[in-house]
Amino acid sequence: MFLRNCWYVAAWDYEVHRLQLMRRILLDEPVVLYRKANGKPVALEDRCSHRHAPLSMGRVKGDNVECRYHGLTFAPDGACVRIPSQESIPPTACVRSYPVVEKFHWIWIWMGDPALADPALIEDFHWMGDPGWRFKGERLDIEGNYLLIVENLCDLTHLPFLHLTSLADTAIPPNDIPVKTERHGNAVRVERWVLDTPTPPYFRLLGKFKQDDRVDRWMHLEFSPPAMVRLDIGAAKAGTGALDGDRSQGITTRNLNAITPATARTSHYFWAQAQDFGLDDPTITDVDFQLVHGAFMEDLAIIRGQQQNIDLAPAAPRLNIAADTGGLQARRVVERLIAEERVQPREG
Amino acid sequence: MFLRNCWYVAAWDYEVHRLQLMRRILLDEPVVLYRKANGKPVALEDRCSHRHAPLSMGRVKGDNVECRYHGLTFAPDGACVRIPSQESIPPTACVRSYPVVEKFHWIWIWMGDPALADPALIEDFHWMGDPGWRFKGERLDIEGNYLLIVENLCDLTHLPFLHLTSLADTAIPPNDIPVKTERHGNAVRVERWVLDTPTPPYFRLLGKFKQDDRVDRWMHLEFSPPAMVRLDIGAAKAGTGALDGDRSQGITTRNLNAITPATARTSHYFWAQAQDFGLDDPTITDVDFQLVHGAFMEDLAIIRGQQQNIDLAPAAPRLNIAADTGGLQARRVVERLIAEERVQPREG
Amino acid sequence: MFLRNCWYVAAWDYEVHRLQLMRRILLDEPVVLYRKANGKPVALEDRCSHRHAPLSMGRVKGDNVECRYHGLTFAPDGACVRIPSQESIPPTACVRSYPVVEKFHWIWIWMGDPALADPALIEDFHWMGDPGWRFKGERLDIEGNYLLIVENLCDLTHLPFLHLTSLADTAIPPNDIPVKTERHGNAVRVERWVLDTPTPPYFRLLGKFKQDDRVDRWMHLEFSPPAMVRLDIGAAKAGTGALDGDRSQGITTRNLNAITPATARTSHYFWAQAQDFGLDDPTITDVDFQLVHGAFMEDLAIIRGQQQNIDLAPAAPRLNIAADTGGLQARRVVERLIAEERVQPREG
Repeated sequence: MFLRNCWYVAAWDYEVHRLQLMRRILLDEPVVLYRKANGKPVALEDRCSHRHAPLSMGRVKGDNVECRYHGLTFAPDGACVRIPSQESIPPTACVRSYPVVEKFHWIWIWMGDPALADPALIEDFHWMGDPGWRFKGERLDIEGNYLLIVENLCDLTHLPFLHLTSLADTAIPPNDIPVKTERHGNAVRVERWVLDTPTPPYFRLLGKFKQDDRVDRWMHLEFSPPAMVRLDIGAAKAGTGALDGDRSQGITTRNLNAITPATARTSHYFWAQAQDFGLDDPTITDVDFQLVHGAFMEDLAIIRGQQQNIDLAPAAPRLNIAADTGGLQARRVVERLIAEERVQPREG
Repeated sequence: MFLRNCWYVAAWDYEVHRLQLMRRILLDEPVVLYRKANGKPVALEDRCSHRHAPLSMGRVKGDNVECRYHGLTFAPDGACVRIPSQESIPPTACVRSYPVVEKFHWIWIWMGDPALADPALIEDFHWMGDPGWRFKGERLDIEGNYLLIVENLCDLTHLPFLHLTSLADTAIPPNDIPVKTERHGNAVRVERWVLDTPTPPYFRLLGKFKQDDRVDRWMHLEFSPPAMVRLDIGAAKAGTGALDGDRSQGITTRNLNAITPATARTSHYFWAQAQDFGLDDPTITDVDFQLVHGAFMEDLAIIRGQQQNIDLAPAAPRLNIAADTGGLQARRVVERLIAEERVQPREG
Repeated sequence: MFLRNCWYVAAWDYEVHRLQLMRRILLDEPVVLYRKANGKPVALEDRCSHRHAPLSMGRVKGDNVECRYHGLTFAPDGACVRIPSQESIPPTACVRSYPVVEKFHWIWIWMGDPALADPALIEDFHWMGDPGWRFKGERLDIEGNYLLIVENLCDLTHLPFLHLTSLADTAIPPNDIPVKTERHGNAVRVERWVLDTPTPPYFRLLGKFKQDDRVDRWMHLEFSPPAMVRLDIGAAKAGTGALDGDRSQGITTRNLNAITPATARTSHYFWAQAQDFGLDDPTITDVDFQLVHGAFMEDLAIIRGQQQNIDLAPAAPRLNIAADTGGLQARRVVERLIAEERVQPREG
């Protein structure tokens, strides 16, 4: 049971091509992705209405897709426009067409009621593509339920344990500093400040700080349904006003995450790392990306382990602790929205 | 739920040996195949009545099979003839013996009521072994339900799409020529004629036609339950009477198919290609076989894709189109016979 | 449904380490094994009470285990002693701790009510470690239900069939000699004697007999629930009183087996071969171990075949024969104890 009336990330822009049809399982449904002659992406049900052959095995003809099996041809809106063996085309011959939008280097897909698919509802990931930022990202296959990743990202108290060595240079903030958790509509925002401390190696490595600079640091995150988590991590010279919003003496990295369920047990994980500094030095982006990538490999392993235990005993109880406040709120938002959707579609 | 009171192909003759026991899953049941001293094939339940060990792991002793585990020995009729640890042999010690017949280079098996297993009911595949014909065949493992293959074979409108390049030389007949579909008892017969056309490269390659000969061509098929499809494909000099049955000025190839369910999701596919010409030139048989084999590899891929989509959504609706007439009739025959069998065994 | 209030073997002593946490599935439950600073083994539920991460991915801290994910820390008794993000620790934060005992080079585990875990109930396997004996053993992964192995061991009439060549030198006793089967409480004891015969090659190879010695031989076995089978195999100079208990003129090997279910379809098989002779010649132990290991590989193959057939038709009937007396009694003891446990815990 997934939330349907919302935007998910279906693919990176560079994964979707003009003539190379791509199959991807999203929310237990087979989807085929390609581009029209004008470059616009298309997402159709990857199952011919006739005999269920994957359309992704077929051919692009103009802006349409021709099924490789018997030649039924479908337009980008899912309408069947040709059945080679007959003249008439019944309306039921169509396949499902999913609204898609290309934005922030991602292909966004709306798996619910197309009438509600308002592009204005797409979450902000402008740091990917904004000229004031540089970014690098990837897609990872996760052997675990998507909410396990959301919980992972929402509770950063796992950093000093799971990423003890991989993120050591980031001088992970101590877990006992105050965390402020707030709800803004369906979004959950977690803020964390560490004031007037020595500069961690991470920021010295990436940024403009000197050995003996003291900094004010922040590590905020915001969850938005269905499974978007954006982190805002940075440091500024101590006492220069970062706490009040003036980051002119600081640097910021954004860790940007969108998770899309493939099945109840597997997920597609789209993420990127962006920086607002050192834009003339691409190695900074690469170093930052590699650092986080290494940590994410540790997350993937633990999530696979969680999922294996869940498979052994799906009904085993879960203990909730103080650090779970953000993750639990995120999970409850998703569960509430799914419940509401079963009663009536969410208003666009 | 499979049709049981009918002949299926269990194996090619060359797959069944005197001393090398072969296990094969047929209709969800484990079957062991071997030959008696006189060469006659035997098919037994491949599960010892005692502790369920596969008899195919055992030894042939005379015409019997000795279980490798505790030495229980079974005669070709399934009767238990020895229990090493005791004198008396209860009647329940037997395993199931399946009627088998070796004919047309195939080992035929009857998975239903043995009393109904009339060899006269075996479908005609005499082109394999007939001195007026040469043939070559193989067995393929299919990752899909057996009826997906029946539908594939019954609707040849897939040729110009799925086999666009692989069968290009055969000059696939246009899909808009008339197709005559007829029922003969439980058989479904589909006829297709193309009159007075240039000779396609396929027939020039295989046969005796010259560059500028014009031909009458035919491509007929006949389905018989449970899952036999025989194609009759040929060409004769135009206007020499082929339409009325005189093929003396033509050549014929037979594409011969028998599909046997392994499980609901996997199948054994036995097929051969036979020709009534060029009998002194074995390369003709080989070329014809390779041509069709290449096309069948394309069918296997699409059938695997269909089955994957069916597994994702078993209840998704199927659109039926004009070209499905033959395939649908075949499917309905099988479904009706299965339903009848549940009420009472089919009359031999 | 497994018997829980009993001792199972969880691991060989050499498999459990001080700092290297080991995960093992036992009775469908994930268990993590390690050792305390004093060397004592510990077995905990391998699933953090918080978010179900495997504790085996974590770290040993003193005698405790720290979850790699968020740092929750568990003592050897399963109590949670630290939740990094909060001060209070609710009692429900604990994980299950299983009673374990290291004895006879095995780590024994009690998967049922800990209050009933009396170490005196551990079956006797003193031949592993006794100075009057030498032994060698291993753990095998079995693709089959644990009771299939128990039945295998309890009915040695399979030797001349399954192990015809591998155990030929042991001069397997003929299957028609008398077998005495007795119940002693929950134990099943099967005795078999062969008096005054030539010395089989096995005993000449391992022992002190000469070419023309005649011997009295025995091959006894004892089953104890849940799945322990101990064989007592030996030979003594004929007529020197072995039948009455005087083995001074003979040699004995012990084949020692403990099977622990992983799941209903897979098992851990712990076994060893021990000898009371040739203690100054380690090659004797090795030769004896290799001989039996080779035979067990044959057993593994047949058990995998049985399990495949059981998976195809779980409800297929089983024929019971005379040789099954021991195995059936063993199976019935286990089934009765499981049924009793469902009503009330077995008395310690």
